[in-house]
Parts: sequence; C-alpha cells; structure tokens
Amino acid sequence: MRNILIIGAGRSSASLIKYLLDRSHAENIHITVGDVSIANALDKIKEHTNAKAIKLDIFIDEERRAAIKDADIVVSMLPSRFHTKVAEDCIFFGKNMVTASYVSKEMKALDTQVKEKGLIFMNETGLDPGIDHMSAMQVIDRIRDNGGKLLLFESFTGGLVAPESDNNLWSYKFTWNPRNVVLAGQGGAAKFIQEGAYKYIPYNKLFRRTEFLHVDGYGKFEAYANRDSLKYREEYGLQDILTLYRGTMRRVGFSKAWNMFVQLGMTDDSYAMEGSEEMSYRDFTNAFLAYNPTDSVELKMRHYLKIDQDDIMWEKLREIDLFNPNKKIGIKNATPAQALQKILEDSWHLAPEDKDMIVMYHKFGYEYQGEKRQIDSNMVVIGEDQTYTAMAKTVGLPLAMATLLILNGKVSTKGVQIPLKKEVYEPVLKELEAYGVVFNEKKAPYLGYNPNNVAG
Amino acid sequence: MRNILIIGAGRSSASLIKYLLDRSHAENIHITVGDVSIANALDKIKEHTNAKAIKLDIFIDEERRAAIKDADIVVSMLPSRFHTKVAEDCIFFGKNMVTASYVSKEMKALDTQVKEKGLIFMNETGLDPGIDHMSAMQVIDRIRDNGGKLLLFESFTGGLVAPESDNNLWSYKFTWNPRNVVLAGQGGAAKFIQEGAYKYIPYNKLFRRTEFLHVDGYGKFEAYANRDSLKYREEYGLQDILTLYRGTMRRVGFSKAWNMFVQLGMTDDSYAMEGSEEMSYRDFTNAFLAYNPTDSVELKMRHYLKIDQDDIMWEKLREIDLFNPNKKIGIKNATPAQALQKILEDSWHLAPEDKDMIVMYHKFGYEYQGEKRQIDSNMVVIGEDQTYTAMAKTVGLPLAMATLLILNGKVSTKGVQIPLKKEVYEPVLKELEAYGVVFNEKKAPYLGYNPNNVAG
Repeated sequence: MRNILIIGAGRSSASLIKYLLDRSHAENIHITVGDVSIANALDKIKEHTNAKAIKLDIFIDEERRAAIKDADIVVSMLPSRFHTKVAEDCIFFGKNMVTASYVSKEMKALDTQVKEKGLIFMNETGLDPGIDHMSAMQVIDRIRDNGGKLLLFESFTGGLVAPESDNNLWSYKFTWNPRNVVLAGQGGAAKFIQEGAYKYIPYNKLFRRTEFLHVDGYGKFEAYANRDSLKYREEYGLQDILTLYRGTMRRVGFSKAWNMFVQLGMTDDSYAMEGSEEMSYRDFTNAFLAYNPTDSVELKMRHYLKIDQDDIMWEKLREIDLFNPNKKIGIKNATPAQALQKILEDSWHLAPEDKDMIVMYHKFGYEYQGEKRQIDSNMVVIGEDQTYTAMAKTVGLPLAMATLLILNGKVSTKGVQIPLKKEVYEPVLKELEAYGVVFNEKKAPYLGYNPNNVAG
Repeated sequence: MRNILIIGAGRSSASLIKYLLDRSHAENIHITVGDVSIANALDKIKEHTNAKAIKLDIFIDEERRAAIKDADIVVSMLPSRFHTKVAEDCIFFGKNMVTASYVSKEMKALDTQVKEKGLIFMNETGLDPGIDHMSAMQVIDRIRDNGGKLLLFESFTGGLVAPESDNNLWSYKFTWNPRNVVLAGQGGAAKFIQEGAYKYIPYNKLFRRTEFLHVDGYGKFEAYANRDSLKYREEYGLQDILTLYRGTMRRVGFSKAWNMFVQLGMTDDSYAMEGSEEMSYRDFTNAFLAYNPTDSVELKMRHYLKIDQDDIMWEKLREIDLFNPNKKIGIKNATPAQALQKILEDSWHLAPEDKDMIVMYHKFGYEYQGEKRQIDSNMVVIGEDQTYTAMAKTVGLPLAMATLLILNGKVSTKGVQIPLKKEVYEPVLKELEAYGVVFNEKKAPYLGYNPNNVAG
C-alpha cells in the first residue's frame, strides 16, 4: 500500500480526502491525515479503514519528519508560508509534494534541488490557481496546435453564493476567507494590457471599472481587475499577446456598492481605530463622516456619497445594518477593515442550508488563417452542502487527482512546477467532468478592443 | 569669538546664514559653513570676514568630528535621517545643536544622554514645524494663564506663490520640494478630532474634504487635513481638547483639481510604469484610462471624471499640457508620481521674477468664565526674491535666532526639545516681527462644530 500524507485537515480538505478515501481500495493507497487538531483529522477520515489521523504540529521537527518519512507523497494544505519546512523534508527524504498555493520565492528557490533529486513539487493545483491554469492551457494549446495565434486572453473566477441561496441585495455571502474579500485589490494598482497598451487602475477606481460577463443559465456577472494580470504571461507562452486581463467575478451591482466602503475608507487595514471595541456600527460609520451636531449619519452619508433617495445602493447599506446604534464592533484596536469584516460577517454568513457557487470564465481571442475568432469558455459548480462546497470540490479534487497521477508515475516533468503541461491537465480536466466541473465552450464573434485596427 | 557650525548650505540656508553674518560683529561670532559642495558653501558666505566655507562630507568621520569639535554650537540643515551622526558627535564633544527637522525616534532616544551632558538639542525650529509651534503656544499659554480652557485648536500652513506671481489656473507653483507636494497625504488616513469624536479621511477623499479660510487682504484659501493632527496633543497640553485639526493651505480650487490626479492613480509612487522614458504626456494620461480604438483621450477623461464641457477643471488639465503627444516623460522606470512631478514641474516652476508666499492660520476656541470665545491668528510672508524666499526666511530666521539664544545662554531647559517654552518662543517671535513675520489676531465668534451642545 502506498501512503499519502495530507497535512492540514481544514474545511478545504473535505473533498480532497473523500476523493482519495473513495479510491483507496482500487488504488491500493493508505491516507494519513495530519493536523495540529487531531479532532479535525479524525472528523475528515470518518473511521475509514484505509486512513489514519495523526496529530501533526509542523513546528515540531520530529513529528513532521516522521510523518513525511513514512509517506510516498505529501499533500500540504497548510497556509502558503508554512510549506517550506515540509518541502525541505520532502527533498531530504525524496518525496513528491503537491499544494494548492502560489509558488512562493522560497518554493521556487528549491527547484534545482528538487530536480537533482528527480522529484515533482506540483503547486497551484486547486481552483484559482489550479483549474484556471489547466482549463486555459487546454484551449490555448489547442489553438496553437491548430496554427492559431493568440490575440487576447481574459480569465475570471468568482466564489459566490448559489442562485437558490442568493437572497440578499448584494448577491453575496462569505463562502471563503472573509478577510481576503475585505482586502481585495489593495496593495497596488491593477495592471493589465489591452491591445498592446499597458493600463493601470488605482484601488479607488478598481470597483468602478468592471466589465460584464454573461453565463448561459446563470445570467449576468461583473468582474473587476486582479492586480496580477501579467503574472503568467511567460509561463503561458503569451509574450506577444495584445490583451491580457485577469479578474474576479461578482454578481452585477456588487462592485459599485463595495466601492462605497472603499471611498469611505472602511477597507483600510493600516491603522487601529480609537475605541473600536465599544464602537457601535453607527459610530464606526460616523467616524468616516464629518462631524455635525444635528445632521443624521444617514443624511451625511447620502450627501457624501451622492446617494439619491431612490438608489438601491442605499438599501444595500441599510441591509448590512451599517447605521445600527446598538450592535457593537467588539474588537479591541480594530482596523477599519477588521471592523467592516465583523459587520459584513453578521449579514453575509452562510445559513446551514445555503450552497455556494464557483464561476469561471475565459475568453480566448485568436487569429486563424487571417480570420479573427473568439472562444468563450465557462464553468459553474454549485456546492452540495456546507461540507462538500463548490469551493472544497474545485480546490480539493484537482489536487487529489494530480496527487494520484504523480503517485502512479504519470507525470514525467520534474521540479517545482504548476499544472500547465498536457500530461497533467488532460487527465485532470477529463476526470473533473465526472464531478460536474465542466467547461462549456462557444464560439463568439471576436470583438477584442480594436476590431478594425484603428490607432489610438 | 564663538564659532557656529552650519552643516548644509542648500537653498533653505540662505536667510539663516545671512542673519548670522549680519550679526557676526555685534555678537562676536564666527560662522563656518560646511557642505559636500564647497561651491555651495562659498556662495552662501559671500566672502564675509567672519565666515569660512569648508568641504564637509558627514560620512567621513574625521571631517565631521574635526568640524564639530571646533564649534560652539552646531546647526544641522541636513535631511532629517542624517542628523544622528552629527548628534552623536555633539554629545561626545559637548556641543549644543539646532535643527528644523521633526524629532525622529533616533533623536528622541538621545534625550537622556543630552540631559546628562547638560546640552540643548533644539529641533523643529523652522517654519512648520517651528513658527507654528511657537505662535500657537504663545496664544495657548496666554489663554491658559488668564484662566481660559481650550476647546478647539486648528492650525494650517501653506507654501504658495505670491499674489503678484499667481498667474496660472491652479494658483500654485512649486516653491519647495515638488516630490513632497506630489506625495502629500499618502501613507495612511488623516486622523483628527472634532467635538471629541475621532474622524478619519482616506487618501481618496482627502482633497474633497477641505475647509475654507479667509485672510484679510489675501482673500480665500482652502485647507486639507494633515495625517498627524493629534501629534502634539500631549506636548501642547491639549489632552482634553474637543477639536484638534492640522491642515495644509492652498488657494481655493486647488484641492478639487488635485483630486483628479488622485482619482486617476497618477500620484502612486509604488510601481514603475512600462516604457515611461519614451512615454508622451498623452500616453501617460491614457495609461489610466480604458483602451478604446477611436475615442479620444480627452473624451475618455471627461467621461471618467465626469468633467462637464464648461468646468474649469478641464482648463486646469489642459494648462499643464496633460494631453500633449509630443512632450516626453524622459525618466526610466518612472513611477506615476515621478512622471506627474515631471509634467507639473514644466508648468509650475517659478519664473526668475516670481515670489513665493507663506501663509499660516490658527484658530483657538476656548471657554472663559462660562463664555465661549475664539481667536483667529494668521501670518503672511512674501518672499523678496528667489534667494531670500518667504520659505528660506521663515525656516532660516527662527533657526538662527534660536541658535543665538542658546549660544548666549538664554535657554535654560536641557535635553532634546522643540520650541514650546516661553524662554524660546517669546524672544524669537518678537524678533521675527522685525522681519515681517507678524501674526494678526482677531476675535471671532466661537462657532466650533457644536455651539449648542447638541448630541450626535
């Protein structure tokens, strides 16, 4: 029996572990789930005969080394910054490794050693990054193999609430880390290329420069730009592409409403607010508005953000209870972002029966025999319940599938890598279809941003 | 003869050096001006018999130590971060020291040693910080000495162009470090107190939350909030004050127009733009606007920022040549802020005959025998020419005066300090009047922000 070690048994490991357990007899594998909380690990293996739960604190060298030494392959579900210790032991003991995380500088630096040992360290093999890479490269390779030349690549992903659970004015609930949602877009201008021209969007305009996307059967979405649109230009082989844009999908109207928080300064995570613990939601709101002894917080807000009487933006603010004088922030030295997160979590938590939804949308513009064409490809996954969420499935399944591929010797490329090779994406995408992760392609008229080659 | 060592002979040293030279016979002093550029130093002393110019590189220990050892007092006009080396030698050789810089953490840490040696390290003794401290403390002390209780303190300073040289639509030219102007307000939210309530303004709203100020004979100004309004609360003894606000003055309309740059992302100093060297002003502008093959940069801009046909904002953009396709940025890997600075320097440089202007405005609200009162105090200085600018005078003269006070044993307080004591501000402010630095006080009705004590 081959032993797969999974480090980290958090929410995102559910589908990963279930997939491997379901195949454990057929594949002759044994799964060890290690977590600082043995209860977490036990909960995930559900007394399966081919699995065992262990307490594993990665900061205790003996615990970590013993577990890795016993494994044939290691899946690290730890936060990205903790992979290094695991990776170093994997090199020492000669074990392959799989993660869903972005390749960090530290991870990249291990590439030579990993190759020398003939190992495979497969990263970015979850949803985004992960399925986005695989599904994009499949189409890009096909276009190129057929003699087409890529002109445009746009790619969007959103972690949202399923239509049947979409019952608030924002069409949004937290289905993943709320902090990342509150801080989204911060830390620098968004950068991308349109028709060969570099474009920059500052944070304060990011949520007002969205574009619309239509998904058959699911209606209209919008997307705002990611900071890192040019990140994979070389790795995808798109050095000469004219338009390259990556974005985050939301339901229509979310971004314009979110922009109110940005404009007010409520998403700032750089300073602590005086007296935040005892502050009411209303006090919090008022801290971003000018003092006035008689005008209401409501009127000051309407005037400051120019919100008309009949604007739905206003109802969105009321819905999250932003003017409530009785609810307390209750966090000491909270930054505005932390206080806002608290307020939003009150409104945007998933109810027990709620389901989540993952949406992905790619656009590929290309030239084939002098003719400009476009393929639009999209994928929607709805969660089963609060354990096997769409997020857990789309993160965990490709990870599990890639792990088995490597374990079974189907991956020939060595070194620190991401799943851009056919040997990985073809079998994974094919198998994902059986789990409802299906990309629907259709031809679209190539509009690009400059169909008539007009200069300017 | 007592020897005064002045380190740094830049533009801001002109009035400082002239003042001391003019008094050198009467005061029996000799002035040594040290600069990395001996030419700079020679230029400032103008062959005066009581002065000598030396080449002084503060990073060469022997040069620095020899100069400091010979001095009776040291005035450091170096950038703030370079004071430490000078300060350590001053402690070693037992010399007093004067600067116009903010007290850094490093400087503050020297306080115990400075006191042990019985020395005086007087900082923040220029204009702002400097004259603002002194002129404010004079009124605050007077109000308190008379039994009044401070309710409100607001303080504003602006470095502007003189009315006779005010000939562009922005009513602004660079009279000081342009980089500081371009980056003003960045690095965190502005924080202040109004009627006991903490208020926060994010950078993207900073230039839209100005207040107006009227200066007799000079008309209307506006002010935007500084980041650090609460900085001197304890040092001024204003722990219980209800309203505390510090700001920067501009001519009316500047801030609303500047906000266009902020909204576009042109003041960002955190990333380099692709191809900045060959970029035209028009290309630079277009990098912040969405791509379109046919729409003009002008129309995209008008639409993006909602600038009406007849809005003077538009003329302000045209005046700085922001749409010029022929002028080049000419800086490699320029950040947006560096590129914008280049564009603005083209338009906002001082002509040889131009004069600058310093404006300062304080408001003091207080309660005296149950009655609420207010004193407004303001000061305007116009530069003489491009050497003895208002900025050079208002920075250099108080520095020079404080230096003589210390040299003549008139300052009894030891340690690292700023000029908040009567023994310093009284003689300096009195003498400044002879140089046209005069504060005009008038009683104003106390409006505060809550005259009727309404809650909310």
